[in-house]
Amino acid sequence: MKYLRIGQPGYETPVALHEGRYYDLSGPIGDIDGTFLQRGIATTAGFPEIDISGQRIAPPISRPNAIVCIGMNYAAHCAESGVEPPAEPVVFYKHPNTIVGPEDDVEIPRRSTRTDWEVELGVVFNKRVSYLESEAEALDCIAGFVVANDLSEREFQIERSGGQFSKGKACPTFTPLGPWLVTPDEIADVQGLRMWSKVNGEGRQDSSSKDMIFGVAHLIWHMSQFMAFDAGDLLLTGTPEGVALSGRFPYLKAGDVVEVGIDGLGSTANPTVQA
Amino acid sequence: MKYLRIGQPGYETPVALHEGRYYDLSGPIGDIDGTFLQRGIATTAGFPEIDISGQRIAPPISRPNAIVCIGMNYAAHCAESGVEPPAEPVVFYKHPNTIVGPEDDVEIPRRSTRTDWEVELGVVFNKRVSYLESEAEALDCIAGFVVANDLSEREFQIERSGGQFSKGKACPTFTPLGPWLVTPDEIADVQGLRMWSKVNGEGRQDSSSKDMIFGVAHLIWHMSQFMAFDAGDLLLTGTPEGVALSGRFPYLKAGDVVEVGIDGLGSTANPTVQA
Repeated sequence: MKYLRIGQPGYETPVALHEGRYYDLSGPIGDIDGTFLQRGIATTAGFPEIDISGQRIAPPISRPNAIVCIGMNYAAHCAESGVEPPAEPVVFYKHPNTIVGPEDDVEIPRRSTRTDWEVELGVVFNKRVSYLESEAEALDCIAGFVVANDLSEREFQIERSGGQFSKGKACPTFTPLGPWLVTPDEIADVQGLRMWSKVNGEGRQDSSSKDMIFGVAHLIWHMSQFMAFDAGDLLLTGTPEGVALSGRFPYLKAGDVVEVGIDGLGSTANPTVQA
Repeated sequence: MKYLRIGQPGYETPVALHEGRYYDLSGPIGDIDGTFLQRGIATTAGFPEIDISGQRIAPPISRPNAIVCIGMNYAAHCAESGVEPPAEPVVFYKHPNTIVGPEDDVEIPRRSTRTDWEVELGVVFNKRVSYLESEAEALDCIAGFVVANDLSEREFQIERSGGQFSKGKACPTFTPLGPWLVTPDEIADVQGLRMWSKVNGEGRQDSSSKDMIFGVAHLIWHMSQFMAFDAGDLLLTGTPEGVALSGRFPYLKAGDVVEVGIDGLGSTANPTVQA
């Protein structure tokens, strides 16, 4: 099953996409949020089919309680960033109000000269997750997967906050999410997904989730020893090489279109505008 | 006006405290949250007086969209932490699900040996705050002030996450809030408040908000250039000297009682238990 939301900000309708058809979940289901994702739906039977053409595609989940991010989780990205691969997962947060839809405008922050893209595999939880006993338990905690662009202002992130990343990660509109939240049964191998990004149609990142230093199950188990995730929370699992920070590509400027995509999870294409 | 919430977790009643009397706000007002705090109430007229004796005192705000924290904002605390005072505000986040009430249990995390306290002045916003033009605008964005304990596991914070603080800041129960959200008209000088902490009745921190490197108005203006606050969000403004990280005091252990307080904002007294 794929879940999505359509309509203008604050007035989104929850929708299911199953075998190529769209179903209107509104009425019985208020929103695609932590409460709904504790159970989800097993079938679209009884929900009316709808035509979504011409509608804004919204982020597929309503605002989570937290966006928890893993940094430096691909060896080649560590190398291009000039840092050693970490011994344990590195964590930081983004403000949940940074989430936008897959085609919404992304703002280049005022006084920014180094706004960068990052394709990431996102995990959304279906329950409270705390002190898991093993990695095997981690996969039962996943409501679905989503592709995310973890936009980052590199000067703000690295030079303006004593090295604490969040100052360059939480600018408004800095977390576009892909069109769908995809349930785990549709993803055969979460550690074998091609991940890519483009700017104005030109390739940037092109890697695979198999290159993660710490895989999804390990990340969830590990982080559950240090914090509790709630149902509906979003975990972003890090980005592979090919960002502007490497020096190989120019940073984003207003008027660019930035795209990210992951096998089976769809893609985003966000125009950039000056804040 | 002081706002508070009483009752068991998930079933709190919003209350106003004015001139020594408590008033039940429930009915017209759903909760002390971002929606309510955009206007607040000017008078308790029309609300029934209530007796709150014997009730749990809950956190005075329901879960914010984000807890944004300023690190290293007192020169003497920088010195005891072994770091230089920052040139600009250092920011990190805590998960909003860390908030507990002023008398609730605080959990010592599993495998923790260095759980520490931090008294902090908290600011709650009354509107969306983005790209403020000046520090003068910042004070109009404040719904109220609250005392907070920014509990921190120092090994998790400093040694387990590549230097990113949040791993040691977001353990469950790590953000006790004081009994009241106090509106700005009740605080004559936000930069002249005594701030203290105690463990088992023995003094630890004893300083003043006048010692902040970056004052409240500057912090709000500055951070609004990098992110947007929403109504109901909580900003913690840093802690003064006198924490266990200094080496002057032992870290917390299960069975301790940890207290923090600020002039005019009341105080917390949380028993600690092993997670």
